[in-house]
Amino acid sequence: MVNETQHTCSASSSSKSDGGSSSGSESSKDSSRCSTPVLDADRHERLREKMRRRQDSGDKWFSLEFFPPRTANAAVNLISRFDRMGAGGPLFIDVTWHPAGDPGSDKETSSMIIANTAVNYCGLETILHMTCCNQTKDDITGHLQKAKRLGLKNIMALRGDPVGEEWEEEVDGFNYAADLVKHIRSEFDDYFDICVAGYPKGHPEAESYEADLRHLKEKVFAGADFIITQLFFRSETFLKFMKDCQAIGITCPIIPGIFPIQGYHSLRQLVKLSKLEVPQEIKDVIEPIKDNDAAIRNYGVELAVSMCRELLDSGMVHGLHFYTLNREVATTEVLKRLGIWKEDPRRPLPWAISAHPKRRVEDVRPIFWASRPKSYIYRTQEWDDFPNGRWGNSSSPAFGELKDYYLFYLKSKSPREELLKMWGEELTGEESVFEVFTCYITGEPNKNGHKVTCMPWNDDPLATETNLLKEQLEKVNKRGILTINSQPNINGKPSTDPIVGWGPSGGYVFQKAYLEFFTSSEIVTALLKVLKKYELRVNYHIVNVKGQNITNAPDLQPNAVTWGIFPGREIIQPTVVDPVSFLSWKDEAFALWIEQWAKLYEEESPSRMIIQYIHDNYYLVNLVDNDFPLENCLWQVVDDTFELLN
Amino acid sequence: MVNETQHTCSASSSSKSDGGSSSGSESSKDSSRCSTPVLDADRHERLREKMRRRQDSGDKWFSLEFFPPRTANAAVNLISRFDRMGAGGPLFIDVTWHPAGDPGSDKETSSMIIANTAVNYCGLETILHMTCCNQTKDDITGHLQKAKRLGLKNIMALRGDPVGEEWEEEVDGFNYAADLVKHIRSEFDDYFDICVAGYPKGHPEAESYEADLRHLKEKVFAGADFIITQLFFRSETFLKFMKDCQAIGITCPIIPGIFPIQGYHSLRQLVKLSKLEVPQEIKDVIEPIKDNDAAIRNYGVELAVSMCRELLDSGMVHGLHFYTLNREVATTEVLKRLGIWKEDPRRPLPWAISAHPKRRVEDVRPIFWASRPKSYIYRTQEWDDFPNGRWGNSSSPAFGELKDYYLFYLKSKSPREELLKMWGEELTGEESVFEVFTCYITGEPNKNGHKVTCMPWNDDPLATETNLLKEQLEKVNKRGILTINSQPNINGKPSTDPIVGWGPSGGYVFQKAYLEFFTSSEIVTALLKVLKKYELRVNYHIVNVKGQNITNAPDLQPNAVTWGIFPGREIIQPTVVDPVSFLSWKDEAFALWIEQWAKLYEEESPSRMIIQYIHDNYYLVNLVDNDFPLENCLWQVVDDTFELLN
Repeated sequence: MVNETQHTCSASSSSKSDGGSSSGSESSKDSSRCSTPVLDADRHERLREKMRRRQDSGDKWFSLEFFPPRTANAAVNLISRFDRMGAGGPLFIDVTWHPAGDPGSDKETSSMIIANTAVNYCGLETILHMTCCNQTKDDITGHLQKAKRLGLKNIMALRGDPVGEEWEEEVDGFNYAADLVKHIRSEFDDYFDICVAGYPKGHPEAESYEADLRHLKEKVFAGADFIITQLFFRSETFLKFMKDCQAIGITCPIIPGIFPIQGYHSLRQLVKLSKLEVPQEIKDVIEPIKDNDAAIRNYGVELAVSMCRELLDSGMVHGLHFYTLNREVATTEVLKRLGIWKEDPRRPLPWAISAHPKRRVEDVRPIFWASRPKSYIYRTQEWDDFPNGRWGNSSSPAFGELKDYYLFYLKSKSPREELLKMWGEELTGEESVFEVFTCYITGEPNKNGHKVTCMPWNDDPLATETNLLKEQLEKVNKRGILTINSQPNINGKPSTDPIVGWGPSGGYVFQKAYLEFFTSSEIVTALLKVLKKYELRVNYHIVNVKGQNITNAPDLQPNAVTWGIFPGREIIQPTVVDPVSFLSWKDEAFALWIEQWAKLYEEESPSRMIIQYIHDNYYLVNLVDNDFPLENCLWQVVDDTFELLN
Repeated sequence: MVNETQHTCSASSSSKSDGGSSSGSESSKDSSRCSTPVLDADRHERLREKMRRRQDSGDKWFSLEFFPPRTANAAVNLISRFDRMGAGGPLFIDVTWHPAGDPGSDKETSSMIIANTAVNYCGLETILHMTCCNQTKDDITGHLQKAKRLGLKNIMALRGDPVGEEWEEEVDGFNYAADLVKHIRSEFDDYFDICVAGYPKGHPEAESYEADLRHLKEKVFAGADFIITQLFFRSETFLKFMKDCQAIGITCPIIPGIFPIQGYHSLRQLVKLSKLEVPQEIKDVIEPIKDNDAAIRNYGVELAVSMCRELLDSGMVHGLHFYTLNREVATTEVLKRLGIWKEDPRRPLPWAISAHPKRRVEDVRPIFWASRPKSYIYRTQEWDDFPNGRWGNSSSPAFGELKDYYLFYLKSKSPREELLKMWGEELTGEESVFEVFTCYITGEPNKNGHKVTCMPWNDDPLATETNLLKEQLEKVNKRGILTINSQPNINGKPSTDPIVGWGPSGGYVFQKAYLEFFTSSEIVTALLKVLKKYELRVNYHIVNVKGQNITNAPDLQPNAVTWGIFPGREIIQPTVVDPVSFLSWKDEAFALWIEQWAKLYEEESPSRMIIQYIHDNYYLVNLVDNDFPLENCLWQVVDDTFELLN
């Protein structure tokens, strides 16, 4: 890309590309900070801009619709699904608005909170649906303000179904989605991207197809940015609709809503609700196999794939919107067969970026929460300023309180019985705890034949990167160095490395070796003697639950342990060992022993007492080997410690 | 160092060590910035704290006194002397106050401006003398405010000599140095460190030695932080004085003033002014050799060394203050023989840090001014905020205007005749210019037998680091790639490396290869074709005097080209190639052709026209090879370009 620009133009154009035309309120503050080198233009773009860019580049995309679950457990599962389906690269997800389910409340199953979780904790661009009928302006404004506060940037503006059978227009009330669009624009200016619904067959209540098109135009002209359509069964239906829209002057993107048939009953119910008619040729196939779920799903996938292909091949469709019904298999299958499910192993940063607009420039985090990113996001949600690269400072914002075990999206995905199978129905001593850690590392089943697939400090099986250290980790866990976090040293691997790579291509990534573990005071005493030999090479922090803290860190400064060097950019250092936040992490790390593990057992039971003993007496230790170009010395440190103890 | 601290203590102690107790007004602003990892605690300390720390650690130190020169040329030379003598590691220098020389003015020879230059441009901790007799409070306050504004933090408070023969005390006026000390404390609180003068033999005007000691105590108790003494000839004189001071309760540091005898006449003059008596044994040696300057200086060095040894051996003396009389040789010799002249090859950052309190956290600069650091400091002096790591931002502060050729401390140290010898009495074409560049690179004499030791863009001979590239540089300059700045790529050398190392020990330093040069549009055309092949690897900026700008830099972001990884610290990236500041540098780089070179010749002379032609038609090019772990490809780029041209 060669830009020939005049001096002044060049300087000012830079300011525009940098300052952020959209929510530029923080731009002046950003200016004097040595803040994030913009890794990914994507992070700064509005949804409508992303859509336009993908359209311009011919890069096809998809989006996923979910509805809020009924129970807290279902919500936990849905959020795991967000993480898994987010990996395929949806341009956005959207969460429907259920007026009967207290959708704007703080309940863990409300539309608002599910959307909040998707944006902030899963890092997904998210559209929150909102219906307006039977609502006051104040209600709506309140919901919108809350959505904005939570970092939501996109609204799907709908009329919604009237509550009673009969419905009368209210003067000055919200009678149509267009009223809601106008309200959003008048109250929030250009803050939200607004989506409206289109009906390829016309809205069932509209006087006519043409009248409905005129309504749609009215909604768009009221300020909507794009249209998502109701489901349909034939590509011709959509393509005709699209041409008709264009003919009357609707020029914004129109995204077809795709419904892969996943079962006989769900289809019937949807058809009833949407008042759509299922084409005879589909009925003919389905009726005979209506009790064979797998067969219906296969057919549904087949049908959706061929319809999507027709849409994409038409050249008029750039993105596909999927009605998932909160299910995973059929939609994923369709997307994979279409070749638009794109699991990108490249990560812009080593950790997942939150999609909250305030956090979009966040570029550095303490390593401690590496396996608990949602907890980190939760505990720093009140911070005004990201990145905060200087935790070791009195004026750095405080970490939120430790009440996160009660947050549904931080709850373990495994029920109590499963955890007991993994972590032991009955513990006989500290050694039984060592065994649990060892089984988690090795992936081997425990003595009762159960694999340990999660730990209180890590909800997921061992990361690929940690696997690089498996052998050594196994050895030390067996002997009571109970590891909860680690990374190998890396001396300049390509940024495209499938295991340790991150950031734009053409760069090099680096790491200092890191090891974090719980261990007994006996081992700590020996370790401290050994560490004297490594004084200039290894930085350590050793702390117990009471906060007794032993360290050789200079001036309590953060130690960068992961960084990357990229073409034409400033250095990026996304992970640090920060002495001050370590003390906040310590509280959380120790509490997890009790909250997640000890409480599985009866009060005063021997098993519970063992965990309580460890909680009260063990130390949490972290070690950094600063000599990243040399062979990691931390294993030698641990070996020396065991040798000293023998 | 093992700190056992409770959680809260540890967190709050960090804030204190970080926040800066002294001039902490900006500390809250610093907090949320990803700002300088403190490389050197020294940079944050007040002079009195530095003194205390050196005393505690038993690390002997020295300081140097200078007086303001009479002429602008002498000032330019004195500033070079500051740079050279600064390399030996003085704890501070001080600049005397000459009431008759308009000492507080903006003249290039005023005490104020010389002290300003020492602090801001030479990075030296500096004490400005100030006398108070015959001055109004408003005058004094004005001087102090100006000193503070310029970044001066230390004042030597003196009474000064009355103007007339007779002198009467003024009521409420400044009659004694103690009045000045009180005034500084009352008007500026604790902002300044204050030094006062002590007289080991008693002040010549004092009623008695004892009365003078009481006056000294009064000055100290008025708020002085330490004492520097008048010169003396025998160590006993000082040691007795020090004990007498302690006996009456003076506990602050007392620094002996050392005067190495450098010549017969200067000694006589000083003795006359100070009303001191030269001991007979010294007179006996000097009188016979009074016309042999070298012999007297040798004797003076000998005498000073033995007296200083006695002082240091007494255990009561931690630092020595030298009256240099603006001369270099004798003092340097004494310091080297005492072993306290410490040229530290280790640099805290790759470039010299300014000692201005506002700039103490500055940790990143554009590479362009690498050979013109004083110009960079001058042109960014109005910036509110350091470091400013985001030049590529509309709200970044502007660079100061290009009027710096007129600033005495940016003037070439070489007179016109010398420059003409180096750069050619008469140019015959562009090739004569190529020759000058080539001679500068090789160090070989030009065809008239003169070595080229400086260039308009570089006042000094080639840096050791650039020497690593000498062979290639010679080759390309001969062919019209006129290099003005370059650095080799470095892939993780120890931070203690004598040539490319910087920062604390135990770290690793890195560089991307950089090459900056002027060249013709013909070569640029070929170069651009070649660069297409290196599109992903090499970032370039190519600009002519009119500002026509060709680049492949993504989003005009800065590209870090020098960085360091250190134990227990964040990454430090002190040098960047920044596209926006490059356009400010461009103005300066092109102007130097005219201001420093073309103007050596008569208007309309062929030589002048040649330089003017280059100025008007050549391009300024910079190239960065992003693949620092591989062999530098920039030479290949240049070779390919020449090949294409052939």
